[in-house]
Amino acid sequence: MFENSARTELSELGEFALIDHLSKNVKTFNSNTIKGIGDDAAVIDNGQTYNLLSTDMMVEGAHFDLTYTPLKHLGYKAVVSNISDIAAMNGKATHIVVSLAMSNRFSLEAIEDLYVGILAACNLYKVDLIGGDTTSSSKGLIINIACYGEVAKEKVTYRSGCKEGDLLVVTGDLGSAYLGLHILEREKRIFLEKPDFKPDLEGNDYIIQRQLKPEARVDIVEILNGLNIVPSSMIDISDGLSSEIQHLAKQSNVGFTIYEDKLPIDPIAYQRAIDLGIDPTVAALNGGEDYELLFTVSQDHYEVLKKELDLSIIGHAVAEHEGLHLISKSNNKHKLTAQGWNNFS
Amino acid sequence: MFENSARTELSELGEFALIDHLSKNVKTFNSNTIKGIGDDAAVIDNGQTYNLLSTDMMVEGAHFDLTYTPLKHLGYKAVVSNISDIAAMNGKATHIVVSLAMSNRFSLEAIEDLYVGILAACNLYKVDLIGGDTTSSSKGLIINIACYGEVAKEKVTYRSGCKEGDLLVVTGDLGSAYLGLHILEREKRIFLEKPDFKPDLEGNDYIIQRQLKPEARVDIVEILNGLNIVPSSMIDISDGLSSEIQHLAKQSNVGFTIYEDKLPIDPIAYQRAIDLGIDPTVAALNGGEDYELLFTVSQDHYEVLKKELDLSIIGHAVAEHEGLHLISKSNNKHKLTAQGWNNFS
Repeated sequence: MFENSARTELSELGEFALIDHLSKNVKTFNSNTIKGIGDDAAVIDNGQTYNLLSTDMMVEGAHFDLTYTPLKHLGYKAVVSNISDIAAMNGKATHIVVSLAMSNRFSLEAIEDLYVGILAACNLYKVDLIGGDTTSSSKGLIINIACYGEVAKEKVTYRSGCKEGDLLVVTGDLGSAYLGLHILEREKRIFLEKPDFKPDLEGNDYIIQRQLKPEARVDIVEILNGLNIVPSSMIDISDGLSSEIQHLAKQSNVGFTIYEDKLPIDPIAYQRAIDLGIDPTVAALNGGEDYELLFTVSQDHYEVLKKELDLSIIGHAVAEHEGLHLISKSNNKHKLTAQGWNNFS
Repeated sequence: MFENSARTELSELGEFALIDHLSKNVKTFNSNTIKGIGDDAAVIDNGQTYNLLSTDMMVEGAHFDLTYTPLKHLGYKAVVSNISDIAAMNGKATHIVVSLAMSNRFSLEAIEDLYVGILAACNLYKVDLIGGDTTSSSKGLIINIACYGEVAKEKVTYRSGCKEGDLLVVTGDLGSAYLGLHILEREKRIFLEKPDFKPDLEGNDYIIQRQLKPEARVDIVEILNGLNIVPSSMIDISDGLSSEIQHLAKQSNVGFTIYEDKLPIDPIAYQRAIDLGIDPTVAALNGGEDYELLFTVSQDHYEVLKKELDLSIIGHAVAEHEGLHLISKSNNKHKLTAQGWNNFS
């Protein structure tokens, strides 16, 4: 009954360009809006502190495959990805509201399983589930979680704020979640051919856990707080290191040089990458869903940070016109392209 | 690869029983959580005031039909329904985050239309769009909006709090949105049979607007505030009057008696109900999506409230054991059953 004449495919733009495009006409009316669209979470001044607000939608078929994702893990991961967004603002997540839409394929027992995972994450991270919306869908399962948190005004950390010379630091290790997904996809293909097949996940516990049940690095936010260090910029790694570095660079107006030999890759993940015929460095650069934190700090903090076990200094910020580069183990300089995650393609 | 043994259909429970069931195991950890699951919005103490947080998911096929719903109106309505939830706590919505999932059926131009509606509502209600998530779905369009708002601590209004003897008041008129939906569904059926047919919506502007482009009663919150009246309980009418009365009764531990001749029904809506063979009272009681406010106040405010043009005093609270009743125009007493909106059936 209603028709559009022009038609531009969403796949022509990709997620980030679409967000940029849609944000163009957004105005704000409230003076307590400190940061709107364009960071890991929005920032609202509530008087004494800043509130943080993020939202994340996961759609069956696009974000998860229930063939190999237990609903408990899915619920857990949905909460964790939001807590990670709040942590990336140097804040603490405190409350969530959960919207669920599901088709009649899902039973009460299935939804109970999902909630076991949601509540396990709430319990571990001391986050309160305070509301939601529960409805039906014509197909599949959709979860949206919106997360409310808090940060002291002087500690809030944006994607912008990095200065030339700042150290680029990443928590934990990279690429494991992506390699875990590869193993799960491989086992699924075998399972679909031979339904009586029992998945062989032996020796892959760590990388599969990184994919199915990631954790948010709230411990790092606490450590930095204890060291009295406020990062100059921060982001969480959901789309992959290359993509996130691009965001920090663009919003801080800097370039970055990173070193291949400094990229933290778990030894088992490294071996599995080789087994699967994947370059471990590519997995570390472009594999998403690690939910680690990527941040920059002034070089003044070098001596303190290098003693922290779970932090890796992988490079430093350079002038914007120098661009983004990776120095390889063989000492060659490669342009770093940010592939991001174009989920419309 | 993973299986559940028991299977209970969600349709056996319905939405409200499902929420009750899932909420059973929810604990809270943060001392600033004032109200969790079970009201129009959650309440969080931020020190100076209370923050309000609500979330609402709309799924194509379950909540809207794009055959007769322009995307602009859909975006507008999605924002309004959230603002209405915050108004129902006697608060003011100030910020939203919008999650969108869409299949490749949707073009950039379609999403732009949706955003025109979202931003029009933001503009009218002075609400800031401060973030979101944009992703793909395997089928259809899904919108989730989470809304952040504020209320003075002494003004927050819950579904609980109504006392025996309190007046039951509703804003605006009832049933029009439901009758508008009937007209649109009728025109759609004709359209599907004869695609060259031009919808005949003449004379139905008001009820169709009530369905496609409802408004949130933030004006009433302001009027009550100006009169220095804090309702003893409040809820917004999204599922229908009967269902909402049941919520107030259950959470306030009271009964209600309402009067058929006091139900506010628009004259055109009344006539269309007759034309369509629908009892206008049934439309007023069970038709949803009116986004009006239903609240209770002490009888002390009777003289002041009866002068307000857009408020109807439709009954009063009685003792819990007396239950819920409608006194018909012919002075018969009928038990009021709350049908709610079982969207799993």
